[in-house]
Amino acid sequence: MKKLWQTNGGLHPTVEKYTVGRDYIVDMHILPYDLQGTAAHVKCLKAAGVLDEKESQALLGGLEEISRLHKAGEFSISVEEEDCHTAIENYLTGKLGDLGKKVHTGRSRNDQVATAVRLLTKDRLAKAGTAVKVLQEALESLAKKADGMIMPGYTHAQRAMPLSVPVWVRAHVASLRDDLTLVEAAMSLSDHCPLGSAAGFGSPVALDRELSAGELGFAMVEENTLYCQHRGKAEAAAAFAMSTVSATLGKLATDLLLFTMREFGFFSLPSEFTTGSSMMPNKKNCDVFELVRGNSAVVLSRQQAIQELSRNLMSGYNRDYQLLKEPLIEALDTTLGSLEVMAVVVENLVPSEQKMKEACSEDIYLTEECYKAVARGVPFREAYMMIKSGRSRKFWR
Amino acid sequence: MKKLWQTNGGLHPTVEKYTVGRDYIVDMHILPYDLQGTAAHVKCLKAAGVLDEKESQALLGGLEEISRLHKAGEFSISVEEEDCHTAIENYLTGKLGDLGKKVHTGRSRNDQVATAVRLLTKDRLAKAGTAVKVLQEALESLAKKADGMIMPGYTHAQRAMPLSVPVWVRAHVASLRDDLTLVEAAMSLSDHCPLGSAAGFGSPVALDRELSAGELGFAMVEENTLYCQHRGKAEAAAAFAMSTVSATLGKLATDLLLFTMREFGFFSLPSEFTTGSSMMPNKKNCDVFELVRGNSAVVLSRQQAIQELSRNLMSGYNRDYQLLKEPLIEALDTTLGSLEVMAVVVENLVPSEQKMKEACSEDIYLTEECYKAVARGVPFREAYMMIKSGRSRKFWR
Amino acid sequence: MKKLWQTNGGLHPTVEKYTVGRDYIVDMHILPYDLQGTAAHVKCLKAAGVLDEKESQALLGGLEEISRLHKAGEFSISVEEEDCHTAIENYLTGKLGDLGKKVHTGRSRNDQVATAVRLLTKDRLAKAGTAVKVLQEALESLAKKADGMIMPGYTHAQRAMPLSVPVWVRAHVASLRDDLTLVEAAMSLSDHCPLGSAAGFGSPVALDRELSAGELGFAMVEENTLYCQHRGKAEAAAAFAMSTVSATLGKLATDLLLFTMREFGFFSLPSEFTTGSSMMPNKKNCDVFELVRGNSAVVLSRQQAIQELSRNLMSGYNRDYQLLKEPLIEALDTTLGSLEVMAVVVENLVPSEQKMKEACSEDIYLTEECYKAVARGVPFREAYMMIKSGRSRKFWR
Amino acid sequence: MKKLWQTNGGLHPTVEKYTVGRDYIVDMHILPYDLQGTAAHVKCLKAAGVLDEKESQALLGGLEEISRLHKAGEFSISVEEEDCHTAIENYLTGKLGDLGKKVHTGRSRNDQVATAVRLLTKDRLAKAGTAVKVLQEALESLAKKADGMIMPGYTHAQRAMPLSVPVWVRAHVASLRDDLTLVEAAMSLSDHCPLGSAAGFGSPVALDRELSAGELGFAMVEENTLYCQHRGKAEAAAAFAMSTVSATLGKLATDLLLFTMREFGFFSLPSEFTTGSSMMPNKKNCDVFELVRGNSAVVLSRQQAIQELSRNLMSGYNRDYQLLKEPLIEALDTTLGSLEVMAVVVENLVPSEQKMKEACSEDIYLTEECYKAVARGVPFREAYMMIKSGRSRKFWR
Repeated sequence: MKKLWQTNGGLHPTVEKYTVGRDYIVDMHILPYDLQGTAAHVKCLKAAGVLDEKESQALLGGLEEISRLHKAGEFSISVEEEDCHTAIENYLTGKLGDLGKKVHTGRSRNDQVATAVRLLTKDRLAKAGTAVKVLQEALESLAKKADGMIMPGYTHAQRAMPLSVPVWVRAHVASLRDDLTLVEAAMSLSDHCPLGSAAGFGSPVALDRELSAGELGFAMVEENTLYCQHRGKAEAAAAFAMSTVSATLGKLATDLLLFTMREFGFFSLPSEFTTGSSMMPNKKNCDVFELVRGNSAVVLSRQQAIQELSRNLMSGYNRDYQLLKEPLIEALDTTLGSLEVMAVVVENLVPSEQKMKEACSEDIYLTEECYKAVARGVPFREAYMMIKSGRSRKFWR
Repeated sequence: MKKLWQTNGGLHPTVEKYTVGRDYIVDMHILPYDLQGTAAHVKCLKAAGVLDEKESQALLGGLEEISRLHKAGEFSISVEEEDCHTAIENYLTGKLGDLGKKVHTGRSRNDQVATAVRLLTKDRLAKAGTAVKVLQEALESLAKKADGMIMPGYTHAQRAMPLSVPVWVRAHVASLRDDLTLVEAAMSLSDHCPLGSAAGFGSPVALDRELSAGELGFAMVEENTLYCQHRGKAEAAAAFAMSTVSATLGKLATDLLLFTMREFGFFSLPSEFTTGSSMMPNKKNCDVFELVRGNSAVVLSRQQAIQELSRNLMSGYNRDYQLLKEPLIEALDTTLGSLEVMAVVVENLVPSEQKMKEACSEDIYLTEECYKAVARGVPFREAYMMIKSGRSRKFWR
Repeated sequence: MKKLWQTNGGLHPTVEKYTVGRDYIVDMHILPYDLQGTAAHVKCLKAAGVLDEKESQALLGGLEEISRLHKAGEFSISVEEEDCHTAIENYLTGKLGDLGKKVHTGRSRNDQVATAVRLLTKDRLAKAGTAVKVLQEALESLAKKADGMIMPGYTHAQRAMPLSVPVWVRAHVASLRDDLTLVEAAMSLSDHCPLGSAAGFGSPVALDRELSAGELGFAMVEENTLYCQHRGKAEAAAAFAMSTVSATLGKLATDLLLFTMREFGFFSLPSEFTTGSSMMPNKKNCDVFELVRGNSAVVLSRQQAIQELSRNLMSGYNRDYQLLKEPLIEALDTTLGSLEVMAVVVENLVPSEQKMKEACSEDIYLTEECYKAVARGVPFREAYMMIKSGRSRKFWR
Repeated sequence: MKKLWQTNGGLHPTVEKYTVGRDYIVDMHILPYDLQGTAAHVKCLKAAGVLDEKESQALLGGLEEISRLHKAGEFSISVEEEDCHTAIENYLTGKLGDLGKKVHTGRSRNDQVATAVRLLTKDRLAKAGTAVKVLQEALESLAKKADGMIMPGYTHAQRAMPLSVPVWVRAHVASLRDDLTLVEAAMSLSDHCPLGSAAGFGSPVALDRELSAGELGFAMVEENTLYCQHRGKAEAAAAFAMSTVSATLGKLATDLLLFTMREFGFFSLPSEFTTGSSMMPNKKNCDVFELVRGNSAVVLSRQQAIQELSRNLMSGYNRDYQLLKEPLIEALDTTLGSLEVMAVVVENLVPSEQKMKEACSEDIYLTEECYKAVARGVPFREAYMMIKSGRSRKFWR
């Protein structure tokens, strides 16, 4: 099957296989957004007089058909088609003949891909924002469940001072609050519409870029056509936001892996949230926490892929950018998965006030004693030294 | 010399050397901010009735003395003191006796360090914001200098279509605009005051946290005391913002390394901006661009250090966080250096309209020809195929 | 469908979906190696007297059946089965009843996975070694094709001195030679057999570990059972070796992207190795080089994923290790793809002696002139300064 | 002060500051190796007839003087000199006049730096190899101290099965064994001598490259002159080896941070190996383990810096390579520091057999019970299910 740019002769099969890569699979995620972008482009072409009303309706109808087929799982991209853009144009041409060929007027795959990727990013970031709030609520109800409970606070992985359990829970809520700031910043970078910038040098057709941007829900047009092809920054911002969300989840998971150890027992999980071992009948494992922790590394590495891929490339489209899509989608979807599972699991965490109390050994109250001495007028550093060398000795065996 | 936490006995020398690391050097950057934070803490202690007016004045005077000494290059941190916090307390105690010991009442090195690091971060991010704007202006005046000039736009590292030189310049301006959004988001994460959270479990002294936050210019108090010790997120956001700025500069440098090659000659630099070779008398090298490009990798790796260091650590202070300071400061200061040098160099870039014109070969106007056919009613894809297989053939040797 | 470790009740569906992740897809790559590992384990069980000859034959027959089905594309792993280990055991039990259940005697999924992953790694590294040599030969024949040709050598991205084209080609051959050293080191780390270490604490069945290691072609048994579960090091070594190979290819691709630019024209590619643009009929792009360059970043980031995933985890199996498989396989297979395509493309590169000659401007011979002065007794630094300030001036416009 | 390549005019001060960067500091580490390399070069120049015996002796004497001054802390590199190469040449010229200028005949800073960096790398890798063996011995004596002790083995961070403490210790010994394989591979990449390759295009003076390589203890000459400037691969291999060593130490530290928690108490440290808190008199912290863990992230990020810096750069020297030195040295020296401190600390670890015994709860022996059933002829999977649903229930609260 012919590519959009092909005349005669074909690509060497090894080259074709390598350049297509996994695009025909990855692009199944991009497809719905490319349909939206293409529909907006059709409306611009009509407004520009390139298409008449009837042509425009026929093309929009064709795009809707593809959307229906895709939702029903009946649309696929062949390896030969290479990407969703060719697959869409092939479908339209197959159905509408010459008219199908007109859909690409005034645009390039460059602005087409950039637009679809930004729509996908905005969609996923919005979902992530919502999922963060759902998790914050789940944590808030855990904090209420643990109202009044005290556990040891740790520094240097050693018991330090008494810690209110709700304060521990709400530290993660505060962390998610900061994550939301970064999600919003990422959203704002993806909220500039690249459609109409064509290959990066503007379109020879006079397209109303405000029209397509508005149609697609972008906050504004990205005026600089070349900057639309400085790919990687908006992607990096989105992946970084996901990476910080994942880091928050990873820290919560790390805490919970420790606190659900038998040596602590501060929290436990009902058995439908734990797994066993194929060899050891005694095991009850909190795999979710391990995978959430592990996925924080995976998401971080996908962010790194994006930052490294786009570093040190000249202005204008470079084919390297094709490789941005996969790590971006994986960073977004992995984080969404981690958010979802943590909300479910946090809802079902069972705190054990008894175990926490047992762990609050006498030594964690010594700082308080220092301050009783301070209240009697002893300089802090002296009170500290006194208590440290005298009283506290017995705790240090 | 004794550490703040030492009673009797000392650390094993190998352990002491390893745990101090480069802190006594790195902390020279932290010192001015620790002085500010300590002054605010003294005011809180006075408001809380722990210090009287005279004591407070004496301590503030001592802090100002250290500041003067530091500015004059006459204050240093010894290896034995380990960090700026001990050095400050030692100075105050040496000068004011027991009163000096009182300064640490109600706080921990944990909130002390976190506060100083955030003050440093805010300061540097503000400088970066300003430096970005200075560079944007330098680019804007380059765009004006190049008004009306055309060079080939490149895709896939091959000549593609005609590109207005000011559009090329302003693509970098737009990139810096997006960077500023990330700088601001980073600023907002560092704008929550951790002072008064002590070791992460609150202070036994009733400190007015609004007072110290206001005194230090923070937008708000970080209410959750434990979250003040979820270190790494604010640092990562700042380093990420620096990394995206550095990536913008790196792309500009990559373009300019290409465009100043003799094979292009689109731009040149006066000789006070270029270097030579110790062996080849003919060389005139644009080292600045190479180092700006290279430093974009360095800053990226420092951001990665921060993200990796803080991943997968339990709640509460972990000593690993000590290692965050160096990559953070390096990410900030390296980026500031790159911004500064690029502003100077961009101001002095000399565009060669002649060389650009020569590079605008006939082939880059073929897309325009396609669209002339489109204007005559030919579907785009057909016009494209016609021109590609016929006319354009001669350009492909 | 039941997991190997399940009794009653099931996993919460969100947890199940999250913990399975993409394992049922990724494990299709692992399956053939797990079949080998399982066959070796069956032989050990027979040697240990746990299975009799007939049982052993029946099980080996079952494993061969699965292998045949898999090669014919008729074996799949269901989402419920989660991984290839369960799928294999299910198949054997479905066919052989209670006997199928016996196959897991004396082992754990932990040593089973570790064994299969090492077999896969060794296989792919061996293929990479071969592919490196094939590429070295392709480069060698390019060097011969370019015998006697001279092009400018570049430093600081500026013409420096004359460079023999075969020397340029063979620099990449030498780079691949170093890569092979790292491939071999990686191979040696994966060449220790973990089978028989069970969950990391040894097997209660007296298994002859030498037997299974020999059967599977491992150089030796990994004696320390717990170390068999220090996962990530052998994977990191393999990914690092792939990353250095990819970096060599990336540098070659970077050179060729430059040298195939119209501004250089030192090399060109026949059209079956280049692609076009969907909008610009004039384009002839060397996408392969861009993707090889981009994939060097992808492979690097997959190596980083492995190193970050396994950092900072306690001894013994952690579920995070499940996430090692995908980046490992991707690092290996992406590099193999890049090696293959570069061998094909290098074979077909066309050097242009004419263009290279034109680029050898007079200035690149100045160092030689210096040395003529040196030969007449002038100290080098003086000759350099003389020529630089006098003669060379004209080249610096 | 003049640079080696300077004629008239000077660099713009902002450009000078930026391009010098921290080189004048970093190069203090490089200096001793540059002295070695320069001495070898002098011998080659003499063999080539460029220098006579007297000149050669004078220059070698000068180099030895610098070496003595450096060891006594009396040699420094000024900011204006920029690097150790200029500082050395300045010293020689100051002392020997015109003869000093002759030392640079036939070489470039490019081969000079590459040689010095490889000598430094080989030296540090050799030290690392020795330090690894010292740590292995320390672990071996810990294993002997713990002979016969049993602690719970953990999987999924949950108690799994009984684990011999010496097996736990020796898992880390085995990990260091694999690290040594990678240290050796790294060593072999740095063992090819670049001296004599000049700027990458060979030297116009007929230098006996075997002579200098032998003089400096390199295993062989790097024949391909251009490949000598494919910088970054040998550095990456060294940093990767350090990174895997650091990962081994990090895992040991992670284990020990857990096992020294009061909740475990399996090991403890004498107080000269622990630190306290400035606020909490009760604290006894194992900061060394936290910093070793943290430094595994730092070393990893320095490895990433090297790999990212050198990715995607064209053949021939690029100034970006200047930035390789700092992360390389830091990766090497940080790892050496971690090795040294861990050897000391491991020597002093005190295992508590009592605490370990108490932690060996009944449930970790259930797998053994399964196998007793297997020995009576029950298929493994059935025995597992029986024990899991019956007997084991009580352990799961």
